[in-house]
Amino acid sequence: MRMVDLIEKKRDGASLTKEEIHFIIEGYVREEIPDYQMSAWAMAVYFRGMSPEETAELTLTMAESGEQLDLSVLGERFVDKHSTGGVGDKTTLLLGPMVAACGVPVAKMSGRGLGHTGGTIDKLSSIPGFRVELTQEEFLRQVKKIGLSVIAQTGNMVPADKKLYALRDVTGTVSSIPLIASSVMSKKIAAGAQGIVLDVKYGSGAFMKTIEDARTLAKTMVDIGNALGRQTIAVLSNMNQPLGRAVGNCLEVLEVIDALQGKGPDDLMKVCLELGSWMLVAGGIAPNVETGKKLLHESIESGAAWQKFLEFLMEQGGDVQAVKERRLKVAPWSLPILAKESGYVQSFDAHKIGLLAMTLGAGRMTKESSIDLGAGVYLAKKAGEWVEAEEPVIQLYGRDQERLSEGVHLAQELISISSEIPERPPLIEEVLQ
Amino acid sequence: MRMVDLIEKKRDGASLTKEEIHFIIEGYVREEIPDYQMSAWAMAVYFRGMSPEETAELTLTMAESGEQLDLSVLGERFVDKHSTGGVGDKTTLLLGPMVAACGVPVAKMSGRGLGHTGGTIDKLSSIPGFRVELTQEEFLRQVKKIGLSVIAQTGNMVPADKKLYALRDVTGTVSSIPLIASSVMSKKIAAGAQGIVLDVKYGSGAFMKTIEDARTLAKTMVDIGNALGRQTIAVLSNMNQPLGRAVGNCLEVLEVIDALQGKGPDDLMKVCLELGSWMLVAGGIAPNVETGKKLLHESIESGAAWQKFLEFLMEQGGDVQAVKERRLKVAPWSLPILAKESGYVQSFDAHKIGLLAMTLGAGRMTKESSIDLGAGVYLAKKAGEWVEAEEPVIQLYGRDQERLSEGVHLAQELISISSEIPERPPLIEEVLQ
Repeated sequence: MRMVDLIEKKRDGASLTKEEIHFIIEGYVREEIPDYQMSAWAMAVYFRGMSPEETAELTLTMAESGEQLDLSVLGERFVDKHSTGGVGDKTTLLLGPMVAACGVPVAKMSGRGLGHTGGTIDKLSSIPGFRVELTQEEFLRQVKKIGLSVIAQTGNMVPADKKLYALRDVTGTVSSIPLIASSVMSKKIAAGAQGIVLDVKYGSGAFMKTIEDARTLAKTMVDIGNALGRQTIAVLSNMNQPLGRAVGNCLEVLEVIDALQGKGPDDLMKVCLELGSWMLVAGGIAPNVETGKKLLHESIESGAAWQKFLEFLMEQGGDVQAVKERRLKVAPWSLPILAKESGYVQSFDAHKIGLLAMTLGAGRMTKESSIDLGAGVYLAKKAGEWVEAEEPVIQLYGRDQERLSEGVHLAQELISISSEIPERPPLIEEVLQ
Repeated sequence: MRMVDLIEKKRDGASLTKEEIHFIIEGYVREEIPDYQMSAWAMAVYFRGMSPEETAELTLTMAESGEQLDLSVLGERFVDKHSTGGVGDKTTLLLGPMVAACGVPVAKMSGRGLGHTGGTIDKLSSIPGFRVELTQEEFLRQVKKIGLSVIAQTGNMVPADKKLYALRDVTGTVSSIPLIASSVMSKKIAAGAQGIVLDVKYGSGAFMKTIEDARTLAKTMVDIGNALGRQTIAVLSNMNQPLGRAVGNCLEVLEVIDALQGKGPDDLMKVCLELGSWMLVAGGIAPNVETGKKLLHESIESGAAWQKFLEFLMEQGGDVQAVKERRLKVAPWSLPILAKESGYVQSFDAHKIGLLAMTLGAGRMTKESSIDLGAGVYLAKKAGEWVEAEEPVIQLYGRDQERLSEGVHLAQELISISSEIPERPPLIEEVLQ
């Protein structure tokens, strides 16, 4: 078998066999296939796509390329959750304790964020003392003990994806749906999940800009999961404006603290109840999503989810007292952006809010950038809410005055107020399974 | 400027600016842009194509990437000729002396062949003593003296093309028309030609299998030439059966020796008269192709072309006496393939004849393969000719009995005889300028 023939086969629109996909991925990991052939192949895939069978095979081959977790030791049906990412997306921090409080174990390995704001691991790092790096044994022991652990991805999990993703990143081949889908799913498969709930976002603040692309990605991932014998559910949700009011690591943790105590913003709660109820269904705790939502509601009302969160922090070394007292290191400077007139706030562009947060220091421009965990944006008003003239619409947080004044400029351009109530698309668009 | 952005720009179907193309080609030659980005870009070009402006700019940038010949020293209007290659294509050997005898200087740098049969340089190497490697000074001095020199490509001409072609060869990006066209034309531009006559072949034995692809390639090359201020003419000719009767290095030189003495096969002469007359027109010797053809005819009739050929051999060290006596080292074994019945020979598949010649040792499978200059195929009968049962149709030449018996098997399958005269497409399809 020669790689050049397989590149041409894909270039000409044919499907690759199982053996051919193995040859490509295994050869690439063993460095027998050079980067320059792999990138040409990835570009051919970008243009020609892959069949469901090819995509499932690619996913499985990547999942098998390194270490795999065996979660059967958890003795229960373990459900994984993945979000394609958005602005202000703190669902993992909220869902973890809620779902675990209902009896479905949550064992999550998460990446650091690249882009507008930090990832889950960055958010957790803003809690004093919290350890994001545990050994595999500590990780599994904790999940067995309290039903919840979230750690940073480590070790040699899915090296094929790591290598291929780094190459795609510099060769214009990131935005290929089968490649995105197999990248996400290979990590879930390698992490041993039997049930997978996917949060697929679309809109200006999401990776998928249109509902059509998001639907295709969701369907591709659900097909992969089902082909590989994992129960897979995808929830399509809108990311045209940020989820919740807080964007930025510390600020988002504070929002989670409030939400776990019953004071969460509506949109965030709605998405968490939808995703969480599917996790309970997949985990065999709830017979249907209605019951699942009821159980999750109760986990908040009863304080069980909040107690689970504190227990989780304690296990991983987080300062529980500081969290209880909401003492996190928010950036020292805070500036309100005021409404110039009274009226209804029109839709915020999530992408621009993300850029604003990054400008303030909350995100990474490159892998090497440092991140200001205390910086960010708080939306005092969201789209559709009434604001009086001179009332704050957005609150900026930062520690660099130059960045703040740049932020003020950006923020002012973002605000649009009108006497008409803006139309808003549904938050949850559909569920695929 | 970042290469990844330019890959994405091309991937998304936009045109690259002059500055962007310079950035890519210069960066690649200086090894600032890695192979893996270049191959992804080439695959994006494969799918998206290039505008005429982009293709011309790419050609010029590649031509300027290394040494360039200054042929103005020749003091006359110099015309270059290029063939996209085919089976039994010995036009350069025949055209060179004919055109030079009419007063247009021919200074040609040629490559060694990769594929079915050798290139022009391999063919010349089958003449005892002939030197294919001259210094640039010797080369130009000879053209000034006798109006004709053909040498092997040497030195640092068009390094961008050399590097990019090697990469395309292993990444499935060879068959992109703008990349093929710019590769060919960059070498002609760097070689200093003011007039360029292109022999673009289509059919089973050519690189372009269909007339449509060949026409697109021809038009692309003519557009490049014109955009860069060179008079460029492309002749589209049929390569469904080999040109002439001889396929293989020595055998082809023998056919050229005959043709220069007025005994050339019709199809070969027709293509040479068409190409040569355009060279005379572009070179300012003939006012139109009719006059050009007449002058070329006379160069054969008068013996001037044959004398020019002998002069050319003498200058480059070739054994003139051996050539006059047709003493070239044809392979020792020769086997005729006989007709099983009487009838008209139907069309030969040029591609299969090429493979047959390669099987006998006349071509290179890889760059490292050695070549048997004496091996090859002689078509005693061509498509449309009548053959009696038991008369030879094809004569095989080789020195390896195993290869010969494999050749017999292949050759027998090639012959098809019928009582009907086969339809034959026109040899010269059209001329673009």
